[in-house]
Amino acid sequence: MIIVFKPTATEEDIDHVTDRLRELGLKSQMSRGEERTIIGVIGDERLLGNQPLTVFPGVESVTPILTPWKLVGREFQPQDTTIAVDRVTVGGNRLVVMAGPCAVEKLEVTVGIAHDVKAAGSAILRGGAYKPRTSPYSFQGLGREGLDFLVEAKKQTGMPVVSEILDPRDTDVFLEKADVIQVGARNMQNFELLKEVGAYDKPVLLKRGLSATIKEFLLSAEYIISRGNRNVMLCERGIRTFETQYRNTLDLAAVPTLKKLSHLPVIVDPSHATGKWDLVAPMAKAALAAGADGLLIEVHSNPECALCDGEESLKPSRFKELMDELKVLAHAVGREL
Amino acid sequence: MIIVFKPTATEEDIDHVTDRLRELGLKSQMSRGEERTIIGVIGDERLLGNQPLTVFPGVESVTPILTPWKLVGREFQPQDTTIAVDRVTVGGNRLVVMAGPCAVEKLEVTVGIAHDVKAAGSAILRGGAYKPRTSPYSFQGLGREGLDFLVEAKKQTGMPVVSEILDPRDTDVFLEKADVIQVGARNMQNFELLKEVGAYDKPVLLKRGLSATIKEFLLSAEYIISRGNRNVMLCERGIRTFETQYRNTLDLAAVPTLKKLSHLPVIVDPSHATGKWDLVAPMAKAALAAGADGLLIEVHSNPECALCDGEESLKPSRFKELMDELKVLAHAVGREL
Amino acid sequence: MIIVFKPTATEEDIDHVTDRLRELGLKSQMSRGEERTIIGVIGDERLLGNQPLTVFPGVESVTPILTPWKLVGREFQPQDTTIAVDRVTVGGNRLVVMAGPCAVEKLEVTVGIAHDVKAAGSAILRGGAYKPRTSPYSFQGLGREGLDFLVEAKKQTGMPVVSEILDPRDTDVFLEKADVIQVGARNMQNFELLKEVGAYDKPVLLKRGLSATIKEFLLSAEYIISRGNRNVMLCERGIRTFETQYRNTLDLAAVPTLKKLSHLPVIVDPSHATGKWDLVAPMAKAALAAGADGLLIEVHSNPECALCDGEESLKPSRFKELMDELKVLAHAVGREL
Amino acid sequence: MIIVFKPTATEEDIDHVTDRLRELGLKSQMSRGEERTIIGVIGDERLLGNQPLTVFPGVESVTPILTPWKLVGREFQPQDTTIAVDRVTVGGNRLVVMAGPCAVEKLEVTVGIAHDVKAAGSAILRGGAYKPRTSPYSFQGLGREGLDFLVEAKKQTGMPVVSEILDPRDTDVFLEKADVIQVGARNMQNFELLKEVGAYDKPVLLKRGLSATIKEFLLSAEYIISRGNRNVMLCERGIRTFETQYRNTLDLAAVPTLKKLSHLPVIVDPSHATGKWDLVAPMAKAALAAGADGLLIEVHSNPECALCDGEESLKPSRFKELMDELKVLAHAVGREL
Repeated sequence: MIIVFKPTATEEDIDHVTDRLRELGLKSQMSRGEERTIIGVIGDERLLGNQPLTVFPGVESVTPILTPWKLVGREFQPQDTTIAVDRVTVGGNRLVVMAGPCAVEKLEVTVGIAHDVKAAGSAILRGGAYKPRTSPYSFQGLGREGLDFLVEAKKQTGMPVVSEILDPRDTDVFLEKADVIQVGARNMQNFELLKEVGAYDKPVLLKRGLSATIKEFLLSAEYIISRGNRNVMLCERGIRTFETQYRNTLDLAAVPTLKKLSHLPVIVDPSHATGKWDLVAPMAKAALAAGADGLLIEVHSNPECALCDGEESLKPSRFKELMDELKVLAHAVGREL
Repeated sequence: MIIVFKPTATEEDIDHVTDRLRELGLKSQMSRGEERTIIGVIGDERLLGNQPLTVFPGVESVTPILTPWKLVGREFQPQDTTIAVDRVTVGGNRLVVMAGPCAVEKLEVTVGIAHDVKAAGSAILRGGAYKPRTSPYSFQGLGREGLDFLVEAKKQTGMPVVSEILDPRDTDVFLEKADVIQVGARNMQNFELLKEVGAYDKPVLLKRGLSATIKEFLLSAEYIISRGNRNVMLCERGIRTFETQYRNTLDLAAVPTLKKLSHLPVIVDPSHATGKWDLVAPMAKAALAAGADGLLIEVHSNPECALCDGEESLKPSRFKELMDELKVLAHAVGREL
Repeated sequence: MIIVFKPTATEEDIDHVTDRLRELGLKSQMSRGEERTIIGVIGDERLLGNQPLTVFPGVESVTPILTPWKLVGREFQPQDTTIAVDRVTVGGNRLVVMAGPCAVEKLEVTVGIAHDVKAAGSAILRGGAYKPRTSPYSFQGLGREGLDFLVEAKKQTGMPVVSEILDPRDTDVFLEKADVIQVGARNMQNFELLKEVGAYDKPVLLKRGLSATIKEFLLSAEYIISRGNRNVMLCERGIRTFETQYRNTLDLAAVPTLKKLSHLPVIVDPSHATGKWDLVAPMAKAALAAGADGLLIEVHSNPECALCDGEESLKPSRFKELMDELKVLAHAVGREL
Repeated sequence: MIIVFKPTATEEDIDHVTDRLRELGLKSQMSRGEERTIIGVIGDERLLGNQPLTVFPGVESVTPILTPWKLVGREFQPQDTTIAVDRVTVGGNRLVVMAGPCAVEKLEVTVGIAHDVKAAGSAILRGGAYKPRTSPYSFQGLGREGLDFLVEAKKQTGMPVVSEILDPRDTDVFLEKADVIQVGARNMQNFELLKEVGAYDKPVLLKRGLSATIKEFLLSAEYIISRGNRNVMLCERGIRTFETQYRNTLDLAAVPTLKKLSHLPVIVDPSHATGKWDLVAPMAKAALAAGADGLLIEVHSNPECALCDGEESLKPSRFKELMDELKVLAHAVGREL
């Protein structure tokens, strides 16, 4: 941590800071410039996390040097994390596609879509049973019954299942019925939920918040891992900007950045990011080219009748085409699908 | 709702849409322009909430006309809502100031600050017992013990207490110990928590999410009210932008806008919005001038030792000065404090 | 255009609006719903561009139906525009890479880099002679002398040259020395400059502004084309968001969106978008996969000594590798390089 | 400037940096921590402006300490700048209101509005002759004739005139006819225009760009002052965010921040910031309470017929009311109007 003093700072101000550092067991090294005095803090600056040094008299700015996370970082673990989801490995050379309906609605429709996406090459089935909807008047999902439909679809297709949890009181049912627990964008900083899913070893797919920085995203993953669960996948799903042509702005530079900073697998969700079915294919391909380890794609056999996000769902035939294109592309960038 | 067709839309496409509208019990009125055909939907367009009409063949765009909320809107209730918090009325002519430490730390410090802010004219005591922190390594609050300290401070000063809930499993303890339950910015779209606090009549202070639109903010309030709890206060606390000179960008135009669209009281939190103590006073005054019904201000007797957000806390003496300035200003805009 | 009236609008209010529409030669068709009266405007709604109908008494909202642009749109010209830059065609099946130094500094360095990027497969040489710098104390470019160096580099390599104009008073020298005139992000809404470069048929590379919407971007292109110059390339170069890990957020969904709305070629600049050399390659590949027609890439033989944007420049050897990877990728998506 | 090295940096890497610093005449002081080596650069770090130190091998981050501006800063000039515009002083205790139509349209209308705003207490007349419009099909202003109308209005009312320049080729006519030259938001980083208006001593009103940071804003002012013109007023006019209820998000925390960092007067434009006439009054009052030195307000005698921005214009009677309210408020915060 680097502490810069104002030109007007007194010796007393500087001593006051160095005294506090000493109390905390930190060494400090001073550098007196022509215009400013600077203190470099030596030792574990995380000890300073709860110290509002910027309000100490004479202090102009305080800049951390170390990254604020530990367990999610490459310094802690240089090699890539891979996560086993049944027989599927997430984070390896093979691109993992998770596809299915936004919301689970009817058993036969869900099972039908599951067969379709499996035939096209999807490895994991996605489907929402509990739906976080902006309006209280929108379809809120089937809840536990929806999870049962996914379990039935898994039984018939063999595909493991990813589904979103909204409430820490539902953990038990997710531990029983889901193979990957999704924590959605709106809950990325629902820290109690993060602690809860961190208490088990069930894989977690953590989505980036609508306006979360990379740093905040990694710290939310750190919440989960610091509770003991190391099976965390990061999912970029678009951030909120001023642009209104698409629902969110897919931030693909986050993919190589997350992979540089962290050892966790990175998934991209082009469906929610854009909210438009005709942007899903180009963004899925771009995500693969940018280095993503997996894709989360909405597929619905009859988008006109989808109770949630029909606008962004691909029909199974279009999904099949996309998968074929992705296979060629994966090969061109040295990966498999 | 207005449905605009593409120039290439066929009669079949148009019939397909009008058929669906008829099935839903809605009347449609067609307008054939030189370049586009338009259908105006007559009736309760909320029936269309789960219909992804934009994916129907030939449809170019779908624009809602009615506001998506009902209970929070002025159409539903023209006159201002006032909320009784013990003997304090929120939403009337008198500006309500809620002040206190960001996080509750020690009993004597909490009680001391409570006495200070009361003496300066604060009506409600704020204090965080459960703290939503970006990093798992930051101080997470005292939890239930912190609420007990607030109860003791209330006993000594008579001020009702507002504190933030993080987990729906803690509702009971909040119902018992807090006078206003705060739902923080990070939980504005934690819909399970909204449903939970909506099930009682305990007043709720709902903070706007970091990147929530006015529309989403009002829909989150609608979640609470639609469950039966009409005692909702809206709190603007800054949104996330590209500017880095302050923590967030306080959006004061939201104040008159929320008051135009909704009958609910509007509170402003200049402390969290700016994250800098020297911006709190000018932004508090600006909020009052913009029409806010209340202010949420952090005060700490020793910001250097605050375990959370010391950077933005006012010392009691500075808070007293601010309150004196606000009294003059309130008078100038025809309000009391 | 659709005009929605408030529930409180009177017959007089409605007549007032229809009268004005009639004066402008527009027909209107009224639709009276249960909650709102709506008027659909039939005819060229661009006639209403300067009419602030929202301030008419009783009007709640006014929604345009037609796109506000004409000449840049697919309705006006369905097939893709291709632009001839010497013997290079921009906008066809072949991906066009424009590479070179951010700022032109020395003749020999410029010529050296030109040879390098040509050898690697670049079709056009980029280089800044006039530099728009945030600080008045930063290197402002060599000006006219810099253009002369680019002309010399063109003479030796045969590559046409793209360079940025800052001032309408410099048009003559750009017409003489540059093959493509670049209008930078900061000047995307410098309308006098747009009008100026629109007065000739010299190809223009128009960069999207830092916080420009797709709509504003297309309207700026419309400025140029409406003056007669149809040789416009659109360049996505990142938008400004809250994220600070990279300089800007590259918005790749803009690529398919621009190509859907407009017939103009779309170029992507991964160097300025990210500001970090190690993100250039993944974002270049992602841009190609997303459907870009060309790339603008900074290359410098000695980034440590670059007077401008050395952080984002690739060394020639790394650029060569990237071009080889792009060739494989282009093939996989059915394009050439 | 503080240079932080990666844990993997070698002695050679560190020497390479210190050698470069020495070449530039800068002293460096090294601090070897447990996890990182840090160099503090002593001396004028502006010498490093063009040095991309982050690409040097082994360097992790480079953090400037000094502000990048000089002449606009409080360190350079602690006391407030006041600017004489005819007999009006901008930047003193008296709040200066600049009011008038968005666009100058007809002589008699302009003169009529001028009389109205003067009677209400406006000190300066605003009016646009050259209009920067997003669409080439919108009214582009009367140009030179518009300036003549403003000159006539000045003759009749005695109020000095502020109007926006778009093109450096128009400087002469502005020097002759305007009392304050406005550089608009879209031209805040049109550096050639900044240099041009910096070459004279005519007062300049510089508007903040739609997505400009405070730092960039001050550096644009620095461009003007560094050319010799110290008569610069800064104008906050809203920034672009995701919120769509108003045109832009007025950033009032910028007011005290700009006044803390700089000695220049700060003006606020609530009309363009919100784009809605009913938000102008609350935001004008909030701006005054936040510490603004002046306001820029659009007034039109017949907003329904305004060719530009009628939505945000106040009628003269409403403007008069606002001015009366502002007088009371100004008194309450110790200022005059």
